[in-house]
Amino acid sequence: MLPGVGVFGTGSTARVLVPLLRGEGFEVHALWGMSEEEASSLAQELGIPFHTSQSDDVLLHPDVDLVCIYISPPLTRQIAVKALGIGKNVVCEKAATAVDAFKMVTAAQYYPQLLSIVGNALRFLPAFVAMRQLLAEGYVGELQVCDARVYGPSLLDQSYGWTCEELMGGGGLHTVGSTLVDLLSHLTGARAMRVHGLLRTFVGQNGAIHGIRRVTSDDFSFFQMLMGGSGSGRGAGTGTGSGVCCTVTLNFNMPGAFVHEVMVVGSAGRLVARGTELYGQRNGGNGEELLLGDSGGTGQEVKDVPLPHLRGLGSMVTALKYAFQAQEERRSWARGPVAMASTFEDGLYVQTVVEAVKRSSRSGEWESVEVMTQEPDPNQNLCEVLQINKN
Amino acid sequence: MLPGVGVFGTGSTARVLVPLLRGEGFEVHALWGMSEEEASSLAQELGIPFHTSQSDDVLLHPDVDLVCIYISPPLTRQIAVKALGIGKNVVCEKAATAVDAFKMVTAAQYYPQLLSIVGNALRFLPAFVAMRQLLAEGYVGELQVCDARVYGPSLLDQSYGWTCEELMGGGGLHTVGSTLVDLLSHLTGARAMRVHGLLRTFVGQNGAIHGIRRVTSDDFSFFQMLMGGSGSGRGAGTGTGSGVCCTVTLNFNMPGAFVHEVMVVGSAGRLVARGTELYGQRNGGNGEELLLGDSGGTGQEVKDVPLPHLRGLGSMVTALKYAFQAQEERRSWARGPVAMASTFEDGLYVQTVVEAVKRSSRSGEWESVEVMTQEPDPNQNLCEVLQINKN
Repeated sequence: MLPGVGVFGTGSTARVLVPLLRGEGFEVHALWGMSEEEASSLAQELGIPFHTSQSDDVLLHPDVDLVCIYISPPLTRQIAVKALGIGKNVVCEKAATAVDAFKMVTAAQYYPQLLSIVGNALRFLPAFVAMRQLLAEGYVGELQVCDARVYGPSLLDQSYGWTCEELMGGGGLHTVGSTLVDLLSHLTGARAMRVHGLLRTFVGQNGAIHGIRRVTSDDFSFFQMLMGGSGSGRGAGTGTGSGVCCTVTLNFNMPGAFVHEVMVVGSAGRLVARGTELYGQRNGGNGEELLLGDSGGTGQEVKDVPLPHLRGLGSMVTALKYAFQAQEERRSWARGPVAMASTFEDGLYVQTVVEAVKRSSRSGEWESVEVMTQEPDPNQNLCEVLQINKN
Repeated sequence: MLPGVGVFGTGSTARVLVPLLRGEGFEVHALWGMSEEEASSLAQELGIPFHTSQSDDVLLHPDVDLVCIYISPPLTRQIAVKALGIGKNVVCEKAATAVDAFKMVTAAQYYPQLLSIVGNALRFLPAFVAMRQLLAEGYVGELQVCDARVYGPSLLDQSYGWTCEELMGGGGLHTVGSTLVDLLSHLTGARAMRVHGLLRTFVGQNGAIHGIRRVTSDDFSFFQMLMGGSGSGRGAGTGTGSGVCCTVTLNFNMPGAFVHEVMVVGSAGRLVARGTELYGQRNGGNGEELLLGDSGGTGQEVKDVPLPHLRGLGSMVTALKYAFQAQEERRSWARGPVAMASTFEDGLYVQTVVEAVKRSSRSGEWESVEVMTQEPDPNQNLCEVLQINKN
């Protein structure tokens, strides 16, 4: 039985998510927006019966069993944790910081019977499902290098907001880089041990952001990850990813372009996902072969939602349907269909990598990726100061 | 009047160079090979009247006024310096080390009336000539990022030799990376101030290299250059390149592929050279436009000589013809037609960057690029030890 859905967010992803959910038979009962106007406007456009700017009104809505959270990173943790506390299943976007991600992990572990996934749609894109499968089957031999690049137009909103602020989770690294960090770990079955990166903000002001306001979030970044042992143990092959170098280049100063390319190179061949299509070439073979074309179907390209994310979102919603449909209870779900999803633990790992890359860009050095195992004491700095003064 | 030519080397570049020289009207009088057999075999194949394995026999040959040196890096310095000392014009490949490159600079400065260029053919490729021109004209606006990538099959020779040895100038960084370091400096009119890099040797042994022998040269590398003020002052635009980030990815574990792509991104648009073709896109324009197709003409793709290098080599030989043909003396030349060539000073800069990237790969840190201004004293270490013991 499919659960009723409440959607948080009025941005481009929320806008495409609602029709995808309905297409699979989910009913969307409630919509939350940052302001009453935004909520009302989108609810009217999409024909959603209930809208609000009070988060509790959605979380406590009796018909909502599954909460989809596609809002600005600083608000995600609060709503996700509260939703789990109320007993609702959660699909959400990334948090703003590792500390927030850690709090989400704690909540998810406290309610293991509830669904809690980070909605990185790329994992569900058929091209990447196939790439992971082929990696496990040894298509490329021993994996050596992963190279991902995304080029596109500016990620900044029309007006000043979180997208402009590094500390609020804005910027290419946090927004797009994090989906690649997650994907590369999923594909290789390994996690970054050390990272090195370089971030730049080339466009500090524009027509909409001027005066005393400046963009602090990155529009260009470039980072390397040295992968170590298997992280989650759910990777494509046991230990295949150990010793692999991953390189990621992100450039959002390229209006009119959208390039989304992930290449994995090994001792026996290579695989490249260009947009939503997968190509492969074995060493000694007759050139590149198309392994998976774009199936189309789940809709046209939508402004601000790149095709790989749109198609992936469609596949993720389908997987959610399979997870729920055979269950008698509206809040029960089967793990199998969503086993490939990014968990909140994965979300914490990704956030840790993102912060390590930012640290590296400041220090100029390789930084270790050390995933938090306990919440940092907010009074720690204070304690240290007291300690120093005592001596 | 065109000078008589002596060619050093029997490799793939020497093999394509001879017909290109003849096509422009140069006479090739002498060929040097590492062994008598190699020299004899290629001389017979190409119909060169004289061959030898003694370098002096070519350098002192009365009909040779221009010496083209395409041999393994450790031998380049010795022959280039000697050729200048005998009063011959020199076009040569890169040296093995910065110290060697410095000695070549000293020799070139001592004989300023002789032609002395490093034969980086990419500078002459029409796509890059046009790219540099368009950069100077402001096509991309303020330059932000350069991104170069070369993917191809292994660079190792069939048998064990210098290509396998990092210290002998083998590896993708030294062989191919150096041409890109030179090109990016030429295009941007700026020089790398700091570099960061990562080198890997994924294939340590193969069918031809086994037993106790191991490859030490890199087959994968990935480096970043932060560009500073104008280096040679001959760049595309004054100061355009300052603050630019350059990223270079080289992967030579991709049999059957050849990708050669250089992209420059600025505030108003971008230019991309794919292979020998140049594409451009202005922000707000109607997609990408082909700015320069491949003219063809200078021959088919040749094994081991990528098309951009082959075409560039053809254009360089044409430039050499123009430099010499209007002169009365066989050894006189006009600077204009070869003004865009890489000088020995540029060669020293490139070598310095290559060594800084290697240092960075070992240290894991950003390394400064400091071009040598005097030859290091080979006894310096000894002196330091004596100094320490004295105290």
